[in-house]
Amino acid sequence: MHKNIISRIILFCLFLSACDQKQTNEIITDYTPYVKPLVGTLGEGNTYPGAQVPFGMVQLSPDTERWNWGAASGYEYSDSTIYGFSMTHLHGTGIPDLGDILFMPTEGKLHINSGKKDLSEPGYLSRFSHKNEITEANYYSVLLNDYNIKTELTATNRAGLMRFTFPKSDSAHIVLDLSHVLRHKVIWSNVRVEDGSTITGMHQVKGWAKERYVYFAAKFSRPFDETRIFSNKKEEKYDSYKTYRFKSSIEAAGPDIQFVADYKTEASEQILVKVGISAISTANAIKNLDTEIVDWDFNQVKENGKKLWNKELAKFEVSGTQEQKETFYTAAYHAFMSPTNYFDVDRSYRGFDQNIHKAEDFDNYTVFSLWDTYRATHPLFCLTQADRNANMINSMLEHYKQSPDKLLPIWSFWNNETWCMIGYHAVPVIVDAYFKSVKGVNWELAYEACVRAATHPQYDATQEFEKLGYVPYDIENESVSKTLEYAYDDYCIARMAKALGKTEDYKRFSKRAMSYKNLFDPKIGLMRPKDSKGEWMPNFDTHFFKHMGAYTEGTTWQYTWTVPHDVQGLINSYGGNENFTNKLDSVFASRNDKDYLGVDDIHGRIGEYWHGNEPSHHISHLYSYAGQAWKTQELTRKIIATQYGNKPGSLCGNDDCGQMSAWYIFNSMGFYPVCPGSDEYIITSPAVPSVRMNMSNGNSLEIIAQNYSETNVYIQSLKINGKEWDKTWLSYSDIKDGGKIEFVLGDTPNKNWGSSEKVSPPSFSDNI
Amino acid sequence: MHKNIISRIILFCLFLSACDQKQTNEIITDYTPYVKPLVGTLGEGNTYPGAQVPFGMVQLSPDTERWNWGAASGYEYSDSTIYGFSMTHLHGTGIPDLGDILFMPTEGKLHINSGKKDLSEPGYLSRFSHKNEITEANYYSVLLNDYNIKTELTATNRAGLMRFTFPKSDSAHIVLDLSHVLRHKVIWSNVRVEDGSTITGMHQVKGWAKERYVYFAAKFSRPFDETRIFSNKKEEKYDSYKTYRFKSSIEAAGPDIQFVADYKTEASEQILVKVGISAISTANAIKNLDTEIVDWDFNQVKENGKKLWNKELAKFEVSGTQEQKETFYTAAYHAFMSPTNYFDVDRSYRGFDQNIHKAEDFDNYTVFSLWDTYRATHPLFCLTQADRNANMINSMLEHYKQSPDKLLPIWSFWNNETWCMIGYHAVPVIVDAYFKSVKGVNWELAYEACVRAATHPQYDATQEFEKLGYVPYDIENESVSKTLEYAYDDYCIARMAKALGKTEDYKRFSKRAMSYKNLFDPKIGLMRPKDSKGEWMPNFDTHFFKHMGAYTEGTTWQYTWTVPHDVQGLINSYGGNENFTNKLDSVFASRNDKDYLGVDDIHGRIGEYWHGNEPSHHISHLYSYAGQAWKTQELTRKIIATQYGNKPGSLCGNDDCGQMSAWYIFNSMGFYPVCPGSDEYIITSPAVPSVRMNMSNGNSLEIIAQNYSETNVYIQSLKINGKEWDKTWLSYSDIKDGGKIEFVLGDTPNKNWGSSEKVSPPSFSDNI
Repeated sequence: MHKNIISRIILFCLFLSACDQKQTNEIITDYTPYVKPLVGTLGEGNTYPGAQVPFGMVQLSPDTERWNWGAASGYEYSDSTIYGFSMTHLHGTGIPDLGDILFMPTEGKLHINSGKKDLSEPGYLSRFSHKNEITEANYYSVLLNDYNIKTELTATNRAGLMRFTFPKSDSAHIVLDLSHVLRHKVIWSNVRVEDGSTITGMHQVKGWAKERYVYFAAKFSRPFDETRIFSNKKEEKYDSYKTYRFKSSIEAAGPDIQFVADYKTEASEQILVKVGISAISTANAIKNLDTEIVDWDFNQVKENGKKLWNKELAKFEVSGTQEQKETFYTAAYHAFMSPTNYFDVDRSYRGFDQNIHKAEDFDNYTVFSLWDTYRATHPLFCLTQADRNANMINSMLEHYKQSPDKLLPIWSFWNNETWCMIGYHAVPVIVDAYFKSVKGVNWELAYEACVRAATHPQYDATQEFEKLGYVPYDIENESVSKTLEYAYDDYCIARMAKALGKTEDYKRFSKRAMSYKNLFDPKIGLMRPKDSKGEWMPNFDTHFFKHMGAYTEGTTWQYTWTVPHDVQGLINSYGGNENFTNKLDSVFASRNDKDYLGVDDIHGRIGEYWHGNEPSHHISHLYSYAGQAWKTQELTRKIIATQYGNKPGSLCGNDDCGQMSAWYIFNSMGFYPVCPGSDEYIITSPAVPSVRMNMSNGNSLEIIAQNYSETNVYIQSLKINGKEWDKTWLSYSDIKDGGKIEFVLGDTPNKNWGSSEKVSPPSFSDNI
Repeated sequence: MHKNIISRIILFCLFLSACDQKQTNEIITDYTPYVKPLVGTLGEGNTYPGAQVPFGMVQLSPDTERWNWGAASGYEYSDSTIYGFSMTHLHGTGIPDLGDILFMPTEGKLHINSGKKDLSEPGYLSRFSHKNEITEANYYSVLLNDYNIKTELTATNRAGLMRFTFPKSDSAHIVLDLSHVLRHKVIWSNVRVEDGSTITGMHQVKGWAKERYVYFAAKFSRPFDETRIFSNKKEEKYDSYKTYRFKSSIEAAGPDIQFVADYKTEASEQILVKVGISAISTANAIKNLDTEIVDWDFNQVKENGKKLWNKELAKFEVSGTQEQKETFYTAAYHAFMSPTNYFDVDRSYRGFDQNIHKAEDFDNYTVFSLWDTYRATHPLFCLTQADRNANMINSMLEHYKQSPDKLLPIWSFWNNETWCMIGYHAVPVIVDAYFKSVKGVNWELAYEACVRAATHPQYDATQEFEKLGYVPYDIENESVSKTLEYAYDDYCIARMAKALGKTEDYKRFSKRAMSYKNLFDPKIGLMRPKDSKGEWMPNFDTHFFKHMGAYTEGTTWQYTWTVPHDVQGLINSYGGNENFTNKLDSVFASRNDKDYLGVDDIHGRIGEYWHGNEPSHHISHLYSYAGQAWKTQELTRKIIATQYGNKPGSLCGNDDCGQMSAWYIFNSMGFYPVCPGSDEYIITSPAVPSVRMNMSNGNSLEIIAQNYSETNVYIQSLKINGKEWDKTWLSYSDIKDGGKIEFVLGDTPNKNWGSSEKVSPPSFSDNI
């Protein structure tokens, strides 16, 4: 049921004239109609449909679910009730958190409890219907059926704006529930009525992030008729006999606080609430709010945000069907949501040491899902968000300096380390940026931080890894996954060491990079756990999910291929291309259900290839190293055709802060960074007829897929910048200045293209 | 068992030369040997014996008790165990709080639980003996018997320094227990090992103050051998199988955190720990520490603090016995402990709105026990600490501005209002200072704040009070006490209004000031609760403690006299001096035990005069308004002789942030501010042979008591500045320029002195 929206040229003069005189007469393409924020809200995508500007600190979105891991963003499309609208959300993560500072407009009997979504307990929550829901880039609207209140949301970087349209009522309320947070626990909160239409406050959350402070300032467009504050479900009110000594009715603190603004409303009366947030103080929340939303012009805020989105979306000029464009621009939208800004308008931010720092010469970012995003998200940023990527790296380096362990982030958000996932994948992000011309980073410091990450004396058996050449399973959990990911990260360090002239380090980390070989069991042709005495794990079942904790969210069938930096070396371990590709074929062969035992939330499965989780993301591209590039083409086109789209249920797995979407963008354009930190991208079959990528270095890369069709998935021939191209890969230097990549596609494989050994990327192990 | 210490002239050149070149050759009297920090630690005094500089933010003292109201300072002399040494304490309050950031050196088996003082549970606490205890101004030392560890404490304004002398041990520990706080609950805490000898952290306490944040930075003189952190009684340590994902062993956060530094020590090895605190951040705690304690010179810090004490103690040059001097200088010491500094070396402080503010043009103070300290403490500050008093008032005005209710502090500490006690006694503090030449306050703002305090629409029935002329007992608790205290506070506002030319306000508040008349029941000659219909409370028992909540910590026998601003009017209500003094005599007449039913912790009783609590403090002086000044003299000398001294048990009641001690100082000097905000002091018999008060305006007032002896308690005659003086009072203008007050004392009353009506202070009601 797509509306027939075609690529439109829209005069933005109306709003541009208000905010940017220079561009008054500029004609800009509006890509935002192609953005479908509901994509990924049904099932495992864990996206949210609310309002946000690109990389914005505020993610103002409805919460329908507070507990389940399957709705970590707080919104699940299959739900039929909304608890309220909160200011912060995680994009596509597997673990819930945030959902801070929830507002809910209600009418009639006041509820300060949320109620239950199965309606077994009454509360402020309301039923809603998707037919009364509008979702756009930086705009969300819904009718709350139980109250007949229309709610609209839009946002700036650090503030959200809500517009509530009430029915006529003697008893309208806007409830703020500071005890609301996704899954976790509010340790403390407070609220103050600052004047007749302003409140401030905070809550502190112990959650996935162990210690998180969110301050807010909320201004209401209409002065309160009355206000009430509840603490531990009792109204905070002075009563001579009950409270004995005076207490204020306009401030309170505790772990369970609600604030209520009461109004008598006219029919269709609109009351707007604008909310600034800060991780530092209510004073800063006010500064953020007053700087970013100066008045009550909802449409202006909404259009300003759309303009910001168009600036980012315009990095891709895509042709194709409506569905293709919606899928592509939604992927771009999802790829450019996080990491999020994490500093106030005065440039101060809360650091990893909980102290307040000033980001004088960089923009501070947070939400680093690095185990996911090192793969495609940050490589995409190298091309399209180079300045932001530099700022993200600088943010990570501040984390490194502020961390008591002097470690780069593993999985960090809101100045907390969660220690989630494995490896030290800030390293490939840094090294990839170093080799991709990203400017504005102190590379010596960055290199120092990378080495520290790989050699921390306590971190996850990196000492045993260096000593033994692998992580032994009798000493450390997830031993195979760690061994392989450390080896890859160390390859990145080795490359950077070489470039910086650090010869000893180059040798040390190159050796560590070859550690994968120590866990390759040639008898089974798969990576296998080994103990500290050098013995293979006995009774080894290759399909056993996680296998006693030796694998991270997978089996050896996914993990065996985690050698992106030395695929040729891995091929050699198999004895050559044929054995290698046969084994790869087994990955993609269909399986029995029993092989998926325990694989709860990982979907997008093609045999043991599980697109719904990151360890698989580069496996389909490995054929291109071994003379069967056509299989790569067939597979990436199949994955795109079956596991992406423009519907709520289109994302087969957690979007993981944009990694799934970035994967889509690269592969749709016909190339993918199998090995970030290297110079190479593996070429595959484009999934759209054409794309022009307007890179952040000012250059444009045009990608054209002649004879594009759903069935024409095979590369027949290729020209890059007019030159016939027989290699299955291209290097950064081939595209950094822009240019043209011209594919000719067909419906049968051209097995001669990219099939000879010499066309594979250079081998690392052969060149140490 | 006093040591025979006589007033000594000490060459301070040795330490002065190090810190103040200018004063190298100055000879200064050392008064600190007269300071007995243990005074008030036995019984209800609720003082602490630890180290502090005058008005210092750090009060580093041993904690022997965590729960009982009777040891609100954390130390009770009758205890035989010490939990540890914490950085902050309240001086003489009735309610426990603070006791933040507790360190304890131990040896042998590590305990992270405190243990119980009855030794029924093991823990880090240790037995101790007073014979191994040394208590001095800014120095405390004790031997921890269970560990044979000597602990010494000293302090600067914002930092404490501890010196631990260990025995030889393979297993010495210094434990930091962030879960420790006096009586209340640690909501959250965190700790980080910053380097091999530095830790930082914080805890947040929900207590008497609802939301209190204490940050610290601790540097150890010797690098740690090992460190351990415990959270919820488990060591924070990465164990691959137990913790699954990595966790840092050098940082933790949660509600129950202990840090342990482990050492192997040599016999008599000294390890020092210096700790800076801040209400803002660990970064500021480090700044405070590094600014105030630059090295490891314990004696230097100790002597610098003693020098600061001598500067304050030198405001009184007292003659008398050793006991008298010890009593007097200890009272001065206690009077100059609080309010305490509450801003960091960068002048920033945490405000009432929890935001960080800069005290650019004032010093910020906290701990305002105003119901107590308006009576004598702040009046004493007007004479001896005028600049500090101005800063305290400016701090209260900041509170007023930051309070959402726009109220001056009632009982505030650490940027929290506790709403403890009644009235709005910031008003008399402000008005008294205004009339006592205190400089550096925006008096218009101060006046505005005073009026707001008296007219807040919700605060404690001030609206009903104005409407009815009294607080009705059927609507509001503590109705009689509130009526009387409001009337007095309003008198203060009226006086200031008049001085500022605010005629309408003068009329309004003068009328309110007369409200006491509405609760005077002439039938019983006492103040009696009245309901909102104007009916007296039936079945009224004048000795019923609190009487159904109509009186604050007392009965009508104490409260009837709470008309300090219009004693003549009160006398008139009785029909003249004779009835008035007869009734006063009844107050001081001995009572049956049943009359004290429920009077738990108020001691110092002479009949219904309870010196252990503030409402009585001016009652003995009222005889001097009614022709029986000799009874005032007899009584104040009796109170001083029986209820003050130089022993741990010498204070009969809570010192209440210095009020009890300030009462002593005034009365020892022979005059007392019965009505702060007025111009008058009531004269009484000096309790020491002579005092020279070196006032903060640079002038000195010499008080000489000829024929002073224990039994010569009656004024025979008096000269002020050479002029014969027959009035029972003197005014501020009589003493502000300094001068000489010469008493002649004798052992029988001179009933002719100060006995005629004309010698009483001017009547307020006659002059409205």
